[in-house]
Amino acid sequence: MPNEDNTLPRAKPVTDFHGNERIVALSDGVFAIVITLLVLEIKVPEIPHDLVAKELSHAVIELVPKMIAHAISFVVLGIYWISHHNTFMHIKRHDRVLLWLNILFLMCVASMPFPTGLLSEYPNERISVIAYALPLVFAGISMDVMWWYASTHNLLDEGKNDKNFIAFVHRRNLAAPIAYLLAIGTSFLSLTLAKFVFIFVALYYIFPNPLDRKRHQLSRNLDQ
Amino acid sequence: MPNEDNTLPRAKPVTDFHGNERIVALSDGVFAIVITLLVLEIKVPEIPHDLVAKELSHAVIELVPKMIAHAISFVVLGIYWISHHNTFMHIKRHDRVLLWLNILFLMCVASMPFPTGLLSEYPNERISVIAYALPLVFAGISMDVMWWYASTHNLLDEGKNDKNFIAFVHRRNLAAPIAYLLAIGTSFLSLTLAKFVFIFVALYYIFPNPLDRKRHQLSRNLDQ
Amino acid sequence: MPNEDNTLPRAKPVTDFHGNERIVALSDGVFAIVITLLVLEIKVPEIPHDLVAKELSHAVIELVPKMIAHAISFVVLGIYWISHHNTFMHIKRHDRVLLWLNILFLMCVASMPFPTGLLSEYPNERISVIAYALPLVFAGISMDVMWWYASTHNLLDEGKNDKNFIAFVHRRNLAAPIAYLLAIGTSFLSLTLAKFVFIFVALYYIFPNPLDRKRHQLSRNLDQ
Amino acid sequence: MPNEDNTLPRAKPVTDFHGNERIVALSDGVFAIVITLLVLEIKVPEIPHDLVAKELSHAVIELVPKMIAHAISFVVLGIYWISHHNTFMHIKRHDRVLLWLNILFLMCVASMPFPTGLLSEYPNERISVIAYALPLVFAGISMDVMWWYASTHNLLDEGKNDKNFIAFVHRRNLAAPIAYLLAIGTSFLSLTLAKFVFIFVALYYIFPNPLDRKRHQLSRNLDQ
Repeated sequence: MPNEDNTLPRAKPVTDFHGNERIVALSDGVFAIVITLLVLEIKVPEIPHDLVAKELSHAVIELVPKMIAHAISFVVLGIYWISHHNTFMHIKRHDRVLLWLNILFLMCVASMPFPTGLLSEYPNERISVIAYALPLVFAGISMDVMWWYASTHNLLDEGKNDKNFIAFVHRRNLAAPIAYLLAIGTSFLSLTLAKFVFIFVALYYIFPNPLDRKRHQLSRNLDQ
Repeated sequence: MPNEDNTLPRAKPVTDFHGNERIVALSDGVFAIVITLLVLEIKVPEIPHDLVAKELSHAVIELVPKMIAHAISFVVLGIYWISHHNTFMHIKRHDRVLLWLNILFLMCVASMPFPTGLLSEYPNERISVIAYALPLVFAGISMDVMWWYASTHNLLDEGKNDKNFIAFVHRRNLAAPIAYLLAIGTSFLSLTLAKFVFIFVALYYIFPNPLDRKRHQLSRNLDQ
Repeated sequence: MPNEDNTLPRAKPVTDFHGNERIVALSDGVFAIVITLLVLEIKVPEIPHDLVAKELSHAVIELVPKMIAHAISFVVLGIYWISHHNTFMHIKRHDRVLLWLNILFLMCVASMPFPTGLLSEYPNERISVIAYALPLVFAGISMDVMWWYASTHNLLDEGKNDKNFIAFVHRRNLAAPIAYLLAIGTSFLSLTLAKFVFIFVALYYIFPNPLDRKRHQLSRNLDQ
Repeated sequence: MPNEDNTLPRAKPVTDFHGNERIVALSDGVFAIVITLLVLEIKVPEIPHDLVAKELSHAVIELVPKMIAHAISFVVLGIYWISHHNTFMHIKRHDRVLLWLNILFLMCVASMPFPTGLLSEYPNERISVIAYALPLVFAGISMDVMWWYASTHNLLDEGKNDKNFIAFVHRRNLAAPIAYLLAIGTSFLSLTLAKFVFIFVALYYIFPNPLDRKRHQLSRNLDQ
């Protein structure tokens, strides 16, 4: 069969290149909406007309802790988006199983505004911490199952089938869900400590670190 | 007329390749928003300050059935997105009729948060079951009309004009709307049974099955 | 300057091809969100627990006129999306003026949920009809100004610089805003008649018509 | 390693071309949602049934100042989108630092509905003016840090590594945040003057101006 409009070689086993474009388009759409709606949760305070001059500044400043909570969720979703982006950079084909794993991943991502609201409304309850960490654990696991499935079902870019590289991506994908699993465990000892895990993971990912440098090293080696 | 920026052959009858990119972009956007908003419907419970410690866990656990209802809608929309994705993988051109059929399809998709809310609020009413199944029936039919229109108006990718393949896609597209039509009929006998159809369809599509394997077989044959 | 990653010829005067991709991506995003949110405006009725069995069906059926109003807006936005899609199929370059005209167009599009809500809440008031038609008039005009600007500033695809074709697109772009301007005028005579114009325009665009056939004829001629 | 599906030369240091596509897709998604939701903030007035004929027109006209406030935010976000678009037209590669800088930029953008609502609800309070200008200052700074980072870390398109051009983009990127910083300062002298800065910046960017003409000159020179 002639193949005029794409230049992919014969290797593709299941569906063609354009499919992955739609997977990432759907995923980027879900991420864009979730991170935007997160910030939208912060409502303009309603203050009686005659008290505005006196109370508005105070009311806005009172929202700052809530804003920080939402900013942390923004960063957390950034971590997962970057992780999804890095993973799908090496996945070049898909089949139906991968589509469904990705939809499962997106379900976890899309559910984040609820636990973020819960944690910012009731920050001192264990259920809030658990409800916040749980979808992140599942999102991380489903991301890594995607990577496992893609790497064992010939869906990776040729030349990325390097054992060290695959193992490295597994470690990177599982770092966040394991941290959040630890946060759930920690919440039975100390809620403050568990919330500290959330902040630490966010900061850890924002700033460049040794693991990151090793990754760049690895990808650069693979690209040559 | 010179045609520098795309390499499609002369065959395209109506509009050029870039059009389909926007159809899928609009569709992916609508799906991304609908699935995200579905999950957003679940609101953080409001509990008086002094009862939080006692009642919050209970209130969150009470939301679990609602969460499951929304998760099922998430899966249902996943089915339709995958179906749209699979169908448009073979449609390479469009005209105005196809654009409108797609907008009709998106209207059915976009309407899903309302019946999902209705079914999760009033799960024991026949009107909820019917309102949930009806847009899914129409979405499935408009999807299949798109396939029928594309395959009879020379809008398919060359080499996909295989009679068996076209018939196969018809069968696949119509499976879900027929199941939902059955659910409407069943709702007059038993609401529980009708809701079981919703769950069964979701599970049927998530797990690989013989129909699916045959499809892969077929696409692989066509791709060679 | 070498130009490795795109194959466009020297002709581009201002910015490169990738720019238009983002214009359409932003526009598709806005359309996707607006049409989805339109349908979301329809809220699940709140009915006291003991009256559900008796009143829910009635309450849902009472929402049908509102659903039809929103479906018409869905179609209207479909008209403008298709118009934007058809116009940008021939625009291959952009400059800052075009970017701003497009943002103005999107502002009109994005504002539609408000007048749709107004018209569906207060269908028998002249202000509702005017508020509904006005952004559509402005959207249509800004679309046509874009076409005028693009065709007079060398932003069109080569070979589309045909006078007849340009005049034809002007006529097509201005048809809808002129109809909505008429609806505003008509609203001073009869509100029912004005609302009939909204329905008529929607139906006129959905079904293929002579103007449409002529367009296909024209584009086909230009494509050869 | 073979590199079948993209034709980029060896130069790319970190990740491949497809990455930037997702950065802009996520960014376009966030912008599309934010500008659409901005306009959605304007709610249909609720008027008792018997007063509709008398009060609706008045209630809608009373919303006009609010609509203008939201239209200005729409334009402001348009400025930042165009700026992001212009900046990323020259950035062809990315690494993790750039991803995070972009997510920080998007966080500022996504937060705009809150200060827009605040300013339109409480237009005569200094805190509203400051809350409105602050995320715009941060957005502008993070945009320019992205440009600084990209230009010093070999992430630019080849041939765009011109010192004059890089300095020019810095000036252009910093113009808006400096104006908004001035607005914060001005707010301690006169709130009216500070709000006039918001309107002036919006108008300045919409209409073509000498700076703009110089840019076109510059890009044209670079493109030849």
